[in-house]
Amino acid sequence: MKALVYTGPETLDYREMPDPAPREGEHLIRVDSVGICGSDMHAYLGHDNRRPAPLILGHEAAGVITGGLRDGERVTVNPLVTCGKCPACISGRENLCPTRQIISMPPREGAFAQWVSMPEENLVTVPETVPLAKAALAEPLAVSWHAVRLGLEALRPVVDRSAIVVGGGAIGLAAALALRAMGVTDVTIIEPNEQRRAFLIDHCNEKAVQESDGQFAIVVDAVGYAATRAAASALAQPGGVILHIGLGEDTGGLDVRRMTLQEITFIGTYTYTAEDFRQTATAIFDGRLGPLDWFETRSLSDGAQAFADIRSGTVPNPKIILTPQG
Amino acid sequence: MKALVYTGPETLDYREMPDPAPREGEHLIRVDSVGICGSDMHAYLGHDNRRPAPLILGHEAAGVITGGLRDGERVTVNPLVTCGKCPACISGRENLCPTRQIISMPPREGAFAQWVSMPEENLVTVPETVPLAKAALAEPLAVSWHAVRLGLEALRPVVDRSAIVVGGGAIGLAAALALRAMGVTDVTIIEPNEQRRAFLIDHCNEKAVQESDGQFAIVVDAVGYAATRAAASALAQPGGVILHIGLGEDTGGLDVRRMTLQEITFIGTYTYTAEDFRQTATAIFDGRLGPLDWFETRSLSDGAQAFADIRSGTVPNPKIILTPQG
Repeated sequence: MKALVYTGPETLDYREMPDPAPREGEHLIRVDSVGICGSDMHAYLGHDNRRPAPLILGHEAAGVITGGLRDGERVTVNPLVTCGKCPACISGRENLCPTRQIISMPPREGAFAQWVSMPEENLVTVPETVPLAKAALAEPLAVSWHAVRLGLEALRPVVDRSAIVVGGGAIGLAAALALRAMGVTDVTIIEPNEQRRAFLIDHCNEKAVQESDGQFAIVVDAVGYAATRAAASALAQPGGVILHIGLGEDTGGLDVRRMTLQEITFIGTYTYTAEDFRQTATAIFDGRLGPLDWFETRSLSDGAQAFADIRSGTVPNPKIILTPQG
Repeated sequence: MKALVYTGPETLDYREMPDPAPREGEHLIRVDSVGICGSDMHAYLGHDNRRPAPLILGHEAAGVITGGLRDGERVTVNPLVTCGKCPACISGRENLCPTRQIISMPPREGAFAQWVSMPEENLVTVPETVPLAKAALAEPLAVSWHAVRLGLEALRPVVDRSAIVVGGGAIGLAAALALRAMGVTDVTIIEPNEQRRAFLIDHCNEKAVQESDGQFAIVVDAVGYAATRAAASALAQPGGVILHIGLGEDTGGLDVRRMTLQEITFIGTYTYTAEDFRQTATAIFDGRLGPLDWFETRSLSDGAQAFADIRSGTVPNPKIILTPQG
């Protein structure tokens, strides 16, 4: 099959690779659409030692089951493979399974390829009316859905339920959409890149600003750098909640003194539970997450250029989806 | 009246000061017992710009109302003075009141003195059977009671409810006692000081250790330095909760990457609500917080030496209570 292989920092090679061999209980998926994630960018830049070259990246996939009893079924892929037996899995927190795997991280190759193999239980059926490119957004949308759910559960009684999202990439936009789907109507996005900010305002109908000195009950850090955590610490109102999604920098940035004196809660959030993924897919299918028309599509064979363009900050869309089938 | 006045870094002067003049709605309290808090030590070392010299420190007081309708009533003092009208106060989160004051911080003098003036609603009646020195522990015990309550509310389903407390001073010991009072039986305290650790084991019947490489559902950082936050980040199990009480250092220490990948929640906690304070007092009175026999008593006139002894690390007891009446 053809695949886009990460071969070293800022280098991707579109080349022939062996077809995946499904393990027991797995299906072979012909990949129709696969999104580029911030964590793919992070790996591409050589900053993620969990993703050593050579490796096929990509974990936001939708496609069609090929072979077996479900042959021809259109599905979106939950890329998180968990054991199903440990206390975390049994309690419905599969994302904390100690042996969790995700495609695009060894030992599992990713989905920037024509085929990927996935366990049966990771495949969510997509209605015929929903394009597979939109269904491929289930993964990033689920990340933010999960974070927002944890945040709303943690929020003790407050006067308002205002929210601000730091970072207007796909995860930030997805957080804004999830907040609105869960009833938080006062949502602002901070996006310093002018081109991306204009896209959020003009195309996505979001309230996007360059910066803010307000205070908000819910602050989503959808970037994960020391600078964005410093901003998040200042933006949270007394008793508020910071939801931290990104893995940009390992430490630093939080104003712990202010968080202590003003009782601010910080929740690290990672991926989603299986139930969050299913709920997100349902919300995509029934329209609760909006028209989801904010991605750009390119051929997988042009993937290296797509990464370079994202890197240079010239892509206004929060998401590029690659199509491996031609 | 006689008072112990903080006059500059590491300098306390036992001297004559004007008697306090009660404001409207306030009672004059003859102070019987007043504890030395870590934050008093912090101010004494010149590290708290909220407490500039000259100032009477001390906010852990119990005594007897003098004058008025409640003359002669034995009370313990909630030192947090709040407006009672703002959204935070109305929702029962008085500790987040934007105009909150605490005695020992301008404009309110503290209780290292023979008299202190307090609003009526800050005074909790102490039964005749309870010594006022024990009743003076209500304040530090309420700090930890509040933190533990927030932690248990935040704890999503986990297999075990194990807890570890970093720091075996009064706040750390109080956290262990509150955890046990709220049903968490597996509690460990980390205390590096050998003398204090021995006291916790021998006198308080606590499980105290020099260090730990375990993982716990609840981690209480009762110190608040970068190093203790680094320890707390490592000690929290996936999905666990860190309760952060201290104000030792403003930033640093948290392993944000691990907290994100393992979904660890960090809750900054400050003081207590009025209801927490009352519940803590009740738990003191009915014995749920144990015999509370772990403090040492000294005369207020010897207060300067008590601070110096705590500073030098030679006091095994987690708390010294000063008695201003002779």
